[in-house]
Amino acid sequence: MAVSRATGAAVKAADRAHVFHSWSAQGLIDPLAVAGAKGSYFWDYDGRRYLDFTSGLVYTNIGYQHPKVVAAIQEQAAELVTFAPAFAVEPRSEAARLIAERTPGDLDKIFFTNGGAEAVENAVRMARLHTGRPKVLAAYRSYHGGTHTAVNITGDPRRWPSDTGTAGVVHFWTPFLYRSPFHAATEAEECARALKHLEDTIAFEGPGTIAAIVLETIPGTAGIMVPPPGYLAGVRELCDRHGIVFVLDEVMTGFGRTGKWFAAEHFGVVPDLLTFAKGVNSGYVPLGGVAISAEIAATFDRRPYPGGLTYSGHPLACAAAVATIRVMEEEGVVEHAATIGETVLGPGLRELAERHPSVGEVRGTGVFWALELVRNRETREPLVPYNPGPADNVAMAGFAAGCKANGLWPFVNMNRTHVVPPCTISVSEAEEGLEALDAALSAADAYAD
Amino acid sequence: MAVSRATGAAVKAADRAHVFHSWSAQGLIDPLAVAGAKGSYFWDYDGRRYLDFTSGLVYTNIGYQHPKVVAAIQEQAAELVTFAPAFAVEPRSEAARLIAERTPGDLDKIFFTNGGAEAVENAVRMARLHTGRPKVLAAYRSYHGGTHTAVNITGDPRRWPSDTGTAGVVHFWTPFLYRSPFHAATEAEECARALKHLEDTIAFEGPGTIAAIVLETIPGTAGIMVPPPGYLAGVRELCDRHGIVFVLDEVMTGFGRTGKWFAAEHFGVVPDLLTFAKGVNSGYVPLGGVAISAEIAATFDRRPYPGGLTYSGHPLACAAAVATIRVMEEEGVVEHAATIGETVLGPGLRELAERHPSVGEVRGTGVFWALELVRNRETREPLVPYNPGPADNVAMAGFAAGCKANGLWPFVNMNRTHVVPPCTISVSEAEEGLEALDAALSAADAYAD
Repeated sequence: MAVSRATGAAVKAADRAHVFHSWSAQGLIDPLAVAGAKGSYFWDYDGRRYLDFTSGLVYTNIGYQHPKVVAAIQEQAAELVTFAPAFAVEPRSEAARLIAERTPGDLDKIFFTNGGAEAVENAVRMARLHTGRPKVLAAYRSYHGGTHTAVNITGDPRRWPSDTGTAGVVHFWTPFLYRSPFHAATEAEECARALKHLEDTIAFEGPGTIAAIVLETIPGTAGIMVPPPGYLAGVRELCDRHGIVFVLDEVMTGFGRTGKWFAAEHFGVVPDLLTFAKGVNSGYVPLGGVAISAEIAATFDRRPYPGGLTYSGHPLACAAAVATIRVMEEEGVVEHAATIGETVLGPGLRELAERHPSVGEVRGTGVFWALELVRNRETREPLVPYNPGPADNVAMAGFAAGCKANGLWPFVNMNRTHVVPPCTISVSEAEEGLEALDAALSAADAYAD
Repeated sequence: MAVSRATGAAVKAADRAHVFHSWSAQGLIDPLAVAGAKGSYFWDYDGRRYLDFTSGLVYTNIGYQHPKVVAAIQEQAAELVTFAPAFAVEPRSEAARLIAERTPGDLDKIFFTNGGAEAVENAVRMARLHTGRPKVLAAYRSYHGGTHTAVNITGDPRRWPSDTGTAGVVHFWTPFLYRSPFHAATEAEECARALKHLEDTIAFEGPGTIAAIVLETIPGTAGIMVPPPGYLAGVRELCDRHGIVFVLDEVMTGFGRTGKWFAAEHFGVVPDLLTFAKGVNSGYVPLGGVAISAEIAATFDRRPYPGGLTYSGHPLACAAAVATIRVMEEEGVVEHAATIGETVLGPGLRELAERHPSVGEVRGTGVFWALELVRNRETREPLVPYNPGPADNVAMAGFAAGCKANGLWPFVNMNRTHVVPPCTISVSEAEEGLEALDAALSAADAYAD
């Protein structure tokens, strides 16, 4: 790709003429034309380079253009670029084996999809058929994907336009001490009250009607609320007590993001189904899937599993997963994510919070952090309201523009910025990003008391 | 990939230990381990080679391992293997432009997905939001994908286990003279009665409640029933009369399969939304999408479109689409599919039908043909019943085994075999396949009067 302004203009013109973008008012967007990317950076056709604190949409866990994974894709393309799902092919077998080795407990059968939404769709179908029950319980602060079931389980405004009755979906509240739905004062109290709320919701919905409880292990786009100790174990116990399938959605948290292979490891819980995508191959080729417990897999041993897709276990996508997992193992990427979170990002973000009145809370782990931006630290009034329109969003838009002016591409959602760089980010890159955040937060401070 | 029996055994063992397969009873399947593929053939680890009359799952329209598309994937991998959807990137812009140039009418905005199911999910969402109406009408003989909305619109037994109320979905009957739902004697009568049936169904459902009519232009897995002249134009007219969005699903028929870029061209109709996947890049990298009319795109000009996905317009998938479309153009692949259908496959299959009493009907176009296998040509009793279990399926299982013994991998669905080789199949390969079919049909004849 020639990095010329002329090429950039043509790319942009064809985009505006023909590309219909996700989650956007098509006439109000102005997509940056990107010329290239490497590691933690990308650049445009004018030679402007950005440090990527978003990992794309929180998926390029090994950074852009890792040479070993690129080479593996090239080799698989030359060998067998695609093959139908009903056959056994080497990269599909090997990817399933490597993933099964890393998933917790007995989640040893892998159903491959193209991405996270389809993984959630299939996890819900498995749970409903395994239990014979209709309902799914999911969290109000969550995101699970854009297809019908996935978006209706989602607890985020992106659900609203597609909510045509949410048959069989019930939302409940999960722990979030900073904005406690339970009026709790401590993490322990928040945990106990959240479990009581869930227990009561199950009782009133009818335990025998509930197929699954679906949770992000650590909710991602909704705000990176690390659950308090004991919460997920408590949910596991409620599921066991009532024969409910426990689904953990690790589409965003899986494969190193939180400093573990899977976030469930932080909490010592094993779900019955675990969904993944994104980090499994850093999105180099579209891939997602469901890791399935022995008990649920056995349900479909003699009875056909009624779900599937043409590209299930796509060889090119699976070869990218095999190479990605090997690279992460060889280069200690998961351990690096944990260390940089503990030693650089966590301390650095907390230090920013001390100096910037607009920062209400810092929370996270690994390369998975959220800063809650507020107008007032006492009242915790968000810097912008829930689901802001353009007119309400001036303060956050200004913050984002400030980051970009300082060479940092930020992740922004409502009143939060998430610090979600690649797991491979270096110490100096992380420090560069913290400096850019420092400057941009000064603008946000102008809106804070 | 070393083609050794030892490797094949390891691939198979890891598959059986860890891969959960689409649409299958996991304990009852025995997936063939595939070592490689090229053009119209693939082979196993024992050196057995098969002529592929399935194109995978009817998607490898340019055959396996086309060197130009493999090279394009390798180049894009080296350049920019992935990038998030909110940006403008060259292969995404170029793929959208090339697709928009080929879609009929003013379907000039392209929303990219990972595959066909997500394309259908998004087309239905667009139609519902564009019209503000809840219902979708779809055909009983159809397949539209495996996610919740897509599978509930589907009219095939794969819908049944996921049908949790089908809120907003109504199925109707479409033209199929061989097994006429309307007791018609001619194509013209079938067409007129099918349109009257649809008109009445719209009237009784309430035109003001119907967002969309979704049809495969030529139903694929359901049996390749080429609609009679005037039918789709009649549906178009009913949609126009009632403000209903007309969605044509060309996931299987698009990109050369029927001897045109899109099957809609055979019938002179332009839908409001057209879904695609499979042939767009021969499935070399997972990709699907929706081509959107100017009017529907305008609905989302100032109002955000509430749908999206992390890998929308994935650069590697789009680069494969760009290369595939160019190859199809340069090598006259679409014209070749039309010619081989007219001069080799069509005549050859009709000649087989004359000699084999088990063949009830031959229908199709391009490289998209179905043979209806029957116990009796007069009664048209299918060789196996609708949705057969293993015990009912002996005759078709025997037919499939006969094909494989003769080096042909057949597409089999209920009582039909579909002849759906790559668009690039040569005359001699087509003739080789017809000979293998000839031998296998002799076994099927034993079940026919």
